[in-house]
Amino acid sequence: MTQTIQRRQTILQAMESAQIAVLVCFLPSDVLLLTGYWPVMGGTLAMLTSQGELFVVVPEDELELAQAAPEAKLIAYKPVTLDRLNSPGSVLFSVASGLLSSLRLPPGAVATSLQDRWQPVSYLAGHRFLTEIEALLHHVFPDRSIVSADSMMESLQSIKTEPELQKLRHCCTLASAGFEQASRAIAAGRREDEVAADIGSAFARVAQDGFERGWGYFFCMSGPNSAQASGAYARTRRRVIEAGDLVMVHANTVGDGFWSDITRTFVVGQPSDEQRRMVDAIAEARAAALDAIAPGALASEVDRAARNVLARHGFGSNFKHATGHGVGFAAADPHAHPRIHPESPDLLAAGMTFNIEPAIYFDGVQGMRHCDVVACSETGFDLLTPFQPPLAHL
Amino acid sequence: MTQTIQRRQTILQAMESAQIAVLVCFLPSDVLLLTGYWPVMGGTLAMLTSQGELFVVVPEDELELAQAAPEAKLIAYKPVTLDRLNSPGSVLFSVASGLLSSLRLPPGAVATSLQDRWQPVSYLAGHRFLTEIEALLHHVFPDRSIVSADSMMESLQSIKTEPELQKLRHCCTLASAGFEQASRAIAAGRREDEVAADIGSAFARVAQDGFERGWGYFFCMSGPNSAQASGAYARTRRRVIEAGDLVMVHANTVGDGFWSDITRTFVVGQPSDEQRRMVDAIAEARAAALDAIAPGALASEVDRAARNVLARHGFGSNFKHATGHGVGFAAADPHAHPRIHPESPDLLAAGMTFNIEPAIYFDGVQGMRHCDVVACSETGFDLLTPFQPPLAHL
Repeated sequence: MTQTIQRRQTILQAMESAQIAVLVCFLPSDVLLLTGYWPVMGGTLAMLTSQGELFVVVPEDELELAQAAPEAKLIAYKPVTLDRLNSPGSVLFSVASGLLSSLRLPPGAVATSLQDRWQPVSYLAGHRFLTEIEALLHHVFPDRSIVSADSMMESLQSIKTEPELQKLRHCCTLASAGFEQASRAIAAGRREDEVAADIGSAFARVAQDGFERGWGYFFCMSGPNSAQASGAYARTRRRVIEAGDLVMVHANTVGDGFWSDITRTFVVGQPSDEQRRMVDAIAEARAAALDAIAPGALASEVDRAARNVLARHGFGSNFKHATGHGVGFAAADPHAHPRIHPESPDLLAAGMTFNIEPAIYFDGVQGMRHCDVVACSETGFDLLTPFQPPLAHL
Repeated sequence: MTQTIQRRQTILQAMESAQIAVLVCFLPSDVLLLTGYWPVMGGTLAMLTSQGELFVVVPEDELELAQAAPEAKLIAYKPVTLDRLNSPGSVLFSVASGLLSSLRLPPGAVATSLQDRWQPVSYLAGHRFLTEIEALLHHVFPDRSIVSADSMMESLQSIKTEPELQKLRHCCTLASAGFEQASRAIAAGRREDEVAADIGSAFARVAQDGFERGWGYFFCMSGPNSAQASGAYARTRRRVIEAGDLVMVHANTVGDGFWSDITRTFVVGQPSDEQRRMVDAIAEARAAALDAIAPGALASEVDRAARNVLARHGFGSNFKHATGHGVGFAAADPHAHPRIHPESPDLLAAGMTFNIEPAIYFDGVQGMRHCDVVACSETGFDLLTPFQPPLAHL
């Protein structure tokens, strides 16, 4: 995706408000915001000056991908060669420090990531910079303040531009291939990992459709394991699915740096009376949350709308997490803005994208969750995961 | 995996040599080395004192997995709750600083990760600590030196204990399910992403066999795309495979934190004369490299053994990368020890695990690589990826 003038303007405005002379980004999702290019290996530095100049120091193997940043000056470097064994960071730092020293910057601070951040993966392994970027900036700019860009980046990432929203929408649409397979793959007598393999395989055939790089993670959690989905991470195991089980399928898929976060729950066979009550309560909670979405609404009110419905149906203590959180640049991050959480101070704004995930968990027994990705629109909400089934039995 | 007394002793000896009073680890593969438990979300701190006490501050959702560290004192914390919206780091830091302050440590430095490190992923997203652990340690220990543990950890990770080696061997064995599927999945007229989906699906059915958590990445690169596999990362695309193509299948799979790194190349139909020459040269280079492996051997000599063979066959300039690098705690990291590289100062030792990946790349045309995982044994080498085919045509 080409990074747009609209996006560049929002960043420059935020930099001006914070009196930042240059923004130096290295976390892949921050580089994506700045450039439209999603780094693979984590060894990329993107630098935007308050005058609007964008420099990207990029490993040469990612140069093709970095062309997505058309008005940027791309500086390629070789992290690894046959004639030296420098640490990867040292090569990058020597290029970056030369470049930064040569900039003629107006007064202002130097901003970069300093605080702990949640990051989705951009490859199966990669560079992790720790204290060294801060040290580099102190070395190059001994007389300027080095300040944290983290809150600013999180805030900028919460509201998508129209082209970013299109990428996220497309990412969510592709994920439907996995959920369509789910209703065919789930059956009593099959193991969770077999089901997840079938679903993942159906998705992998379409994951790159329209993207440079796309892949995804599908998890299958059945019976008592579905109750554990209230935790911070999903985990497919080898349990054999039984008739009457709830089977939760959770997906985080990605296309060119934009992530989905989707859950559907299936019942194997005819639902029990309790499962029907759970379905009804979640459907009603979902509708109430969606109804509460509007520009200017408090995110905490959206949470409350879902939570009140579940409580009224007697499931208050079974809804153990927030109703949602920001999705797009972030994956599975409960702190991504806007936080649809009882204590959230966040206000919704058009272009914000997040999930709505009402759920009911009975420890040791079963869990049910329905998680959609939505965008706050000018008038209400836009559902990015309209595919069926909302809650299905097989 | 239970962390062993043998492993604990090697760490304590390294700490004693470096006069370290406490080692504080947060990168998942470092926590794995210290505890035998591979963190999921990156929000775990493991602390080993020079007296041999091990403390693990662990998110409560990972407590079950952290039981792998049986002699450790586990301190669970809740990163996220419904009644507060603290940053995840702040909760961890308050627990960790209380714990660290209460330790009665002998004289010595405080060691932690400060330098850029390569890390494999442990989930689809997670915490990334940047400058904050260093700041925490300066706060708790104002009078002690805070030193980098990075070189020590890399060195400790290069040599596996016997139980670690067993895990890695099992990880490699499971990956064979993917490669067995490859010879059935590859065919003229099929797309790379379809082939990768079939292979990945076959592997996913066995990935968790014997592991708490296991998954993997299989890439398919055909024709001219196989030449691009010389770069720093693998990438499946949507190219349609043609008769006569080389088709490279590359895998990085993981079981409980131990990673494989395996490549096989297939020919669609009968190989051309040039492809036969490539097969022969690579087989001979591989044998020469394996022959050179022994405790005390220079890693650079192993590289030279393979490189000389390829040069003699006229493919010297087509072998664009090192012959190998450390594998196990690391995935796809060209700087993991031992570096089987022309300029490597590393000496091989029994228990070191690494890959041997002779290759021939013709830009824009085709590439062939054969990558095995091996362990340096007391007498030579032990092949962890003995499965066929070494180089096959279909």
